[in-house]
Amino acid sequence: MTARSSDSFKIGIAGLGTVGVGVVKILQQNADTVAQRAGKKIDIVSVIASSKDKDRGVDLSSYEWADDLKQMAQDNRLDCVVELIGGSDGAVLDMVETAIVNGKDIVTANKALLAHHGYRLAEIAEGESVTIAYEAAVAGGIPIIKSLREGLAANRMQAVSGILNGTCNYILSDMRTSGRDFNTVLKEAQEKGYAEADPTFDVDGIDTAHKLTLLAALAFGVKPDFDALQIQGIRDITAHDIDLADMLGCRIKLLGSAKEQAGKVLQTVEPCLVPTEGMLGSTSGVYNAVLTQGDPVGQSVAIGLGAGEGPTASSVVADIIDIAKGYRQSVFGIPVQCLREMTWENGDAFEAPYYVRLMLSEQNASDAVVESIKDAFTQGGICIDKTIMSADKAVVAFLTKQMTGADVKNKADIIMKQVGGVKPPLILRVER
Amino acid sequence: MTARSSDSFKIGIAGLGTVGVGVVKILQQNADTVAQRAGKKIDIVSVIASSKDKDRGVDLSSYEWADDLKQMAQDNRLDCVVELIGGSDGAVLDMVETAIVNGKDIVTANKALLAHHGYRLAEIAEGESVTIAYEAAVAGGIPIIKSLREGLAANRMQAVSGILNGTCNYILSDMRTSGRDFNTVLKEAQEKGYAEADPTFDVDGIDTAHKLTLLAALAFGVKPDFDALQIQGIRDITAHDIDLADMLGCRIKLLGSAKEQAGKVLQTVEPCLVPTEGMLGSTSGVYNAVLTQGDPVGQSVAIGLGAGEGPTASSVVADIIDIAKGYRQSVFGIPVQCLREMTWENGDAFEAPYYVRLMLSEQNASDAVVESIKDAFTQGGICIDKTIMSADKAVVAFLTKQMTGADVKNKADIIMKQVGGVKPPLILRVER
Repeated sequence: MTARSSDSFKIGIAGLGTVGVGVVKILQQNADTVAQRAGKKIDIVSVIASSKDKDRGVDLSSYEWADDLKQMAQDNRLDCVVELIGGSDGAVLDMVETAIVNGKDIVTANKALLAHHGYRLAEIAEGESVTIAYEAAVAGGIPIIKSLREGLAANRMQAVSGILNGTCNYILSDMRTSGRDFNTVLKEAQEKGYAEADPTFDVDGIDTAHKLTLLAALAFGVKPDFDALQIQGIRDITAHDIDLADMLGCRIKLLGSAKEQAGKVLQTVEPCLVPTEGMLGSTSGVYNAVLTQGDPVGQSVAIGLGAGEGPTASSVVADIIDIAKGYRQSVFGIPVQCLREMTWENGDAFEAPYYVRLMLSEQNASDAVVESIKDAFTQGGICIDKTIMSADKAVVAFLTKQMTGADVKNKADIIMKQVGGVKPPLILRVER
Repeated sequence: MTARSSDSFKIGIAGLGTVGVGVVKILQQNADTVAQRAGKKIDIVSVIASSKDKDRGVDLSSYEWADDLKQMAQDNRLDCVVELIGGSDGAVLDMVETAIVNGKDIVTANKALLAHHGYRLAEIAEGESVTIAYEAAVAGGIPIIKSLREGLAANRMQAVSGILNGTCNYILSDMRTSGRDFNTVLKEAQEKGYAEADPTFDVDGIDTAHKLTLLAALAFGVKPDFDALQIQGIRDITAHDIDLADMLGCRIKLLGSAKEQAGKVLQTVEPCLVPTEGMLGSTSGVYNAVLTQGDPVGQSVAIGLGAGEGPTASSVVADIIDIAKGYRQSVFGIPVQCLREMTWENGDAFEAPYYVRLMLSEQNASDAVVESIKDAFTQGGICIDKTIMSADKAVVAFLTKQMTGADVKNKADIIMKQVGGVKPPLILRVER
């Protein structure tokens, strides 16, 4: 690290979108509290974003505008670069790497960057005795990174799961309360600014997968591996599924789930049925929830706002305070060379009851056809615990007994070929 | 501080009850994980408890047995004393103070000690550049101290409240599911070991008050002041109240609540009605829940096991790891001289709907009497939103419109004198 004065902690902020502006606001409005907690003043030295002239509703006049990302990354005056641009490659990756090798700590909300390059960046950071802090990257205002890395540090963690994407949870909650279908709700969410113009990262589960990758690495002390993740988004969830889930006393939530079992980590991102009255079931709208299970602490849940200016900026500033105090945690809780190489299994290894939903054509929508399909399922080795259907019998769902996802999917595949004339079913795990 | 080797972190453990034994177990069983996270080995050098010969189900043979508390507090080999004896005065207070002036960090689960003497002890600790860590003192396995002190450090906290006593929550949950009365459930809880032989601290709300004192100090950056707290326990809650609350879609929970409002901190410990479907309402049995509200993070909830060997020991060891890493936080989040002197107001200043329950004698148990009392309430200035009663009309409860606790209590007092012949009502806040 280059020698710097220690009477204040000097940062550069790259990216002045919602979160970047939120960070500036907190550092201006809560300056005294922040300084008391950090033990020193936090000084914004420079900022940079795509457009210099845009009015962002916050006074930036006392900060320098950096020439470019590289200049900020190499600026000898800075202790820390706060990266709030996003994106996993290209200029942002270069900038973070350059800042690290220039002895700067990194604070970021960038889950994509860390899910893909976190291990390598952590190695470089450790060599430079700096850290990468990313509380804001997962579950917005919930300090879950800190909890896993420090608060629960005495435990052998067994499982971590949660509702990690506010956009999906908003869409699914709205589908339930309004009875409208996925596309209608998504379109409205986009108009209101709750969903991006390109919603792929959110609704296809990729954002959740980035976050789960980081949570699993921290919880189990393993190398993060985004590519080991099986990902299923929420586009196939229909208003019928929401109704049928309701009849089962459940809600549908996009869950990221990871579990260590017999020396393997099982992980998956997929929509699941969860009990309405449970902690996940009652987490609605833009709230996130994270469940952890550890030995000896048992089960815990943390719920809070998952995104947005305030919650995310709150977590960014908490990280800045920690580093200003000199608390540089290992990026994944333990030194990189201690992170285990893990055998990953995809979520099809999860044992659970499964929800298997079929859409029948008009001429097939009868008790007799449902009964015959049910018989085919039973003979095909899928034990059915419960059968429910829409009033017009066109949408039928079976709740299976406990089995693995692989088992139910394989068997359903064979059975559906025998039955013929019915589209492949939607299969969702039921998370108790 | 005295010079000590830095290749391991040396602790003494005072108190080998459930939690002390739990700490020893984690440090034995999870030694590798703990060492990776702490960056060094944690060495138990010595232990002490009331009886040396008792079989505690854990191998203590490689640890010295300290001569007495004072010897451990003055032992030059120790970096840290882990105080798990409990009690707010006498030998324990002396020991903690002696250990601090001997340059040792303190890890403790002792909320009573810190609620009463925390400010003074923090002053002494700061002078010696050591810290007092107490994650285990509040809400067992939930890392709420860390969340408030670090994870939410960027925020101006507005409110903190929660279910902080597992014994009370167990009793109230059992009363609800079994329909039995307070004394029967308490007796069984004592037989099962879920409640102490002397249950005063738990059921009279004192334990909750100790915890709330610490949470309020941390959340608002104020001097802890146990004596400013109004405390009401759960002894007056009857099976009727549980039933009537159910009819209102609520459960009864012992809550500790603190809120900063117009430059004052309002705080109270009292049984409250909370919505059954909310996060507090669905926290049952021995679970604890802590709600926080901050600007800009918004509302968050953390739920986990509130007591017992595993969760509490998990938090003790997390504190040991932090200190072993050299992360010595200010005891109340900011330096003691920055803690504000606060004007405290008791909970009667909380504005809320209130539940006012009356027991009528057999001859008064009629619609006519209920109507006349209701009229008296309305004329006496208490607006009633809803009236509910038991099937036999002997137990009547009014749900008031929004008003302060002081207002409803004063007015009810005058009204009941006018009505005559009816015992004073039980008045509980409804927390939405």
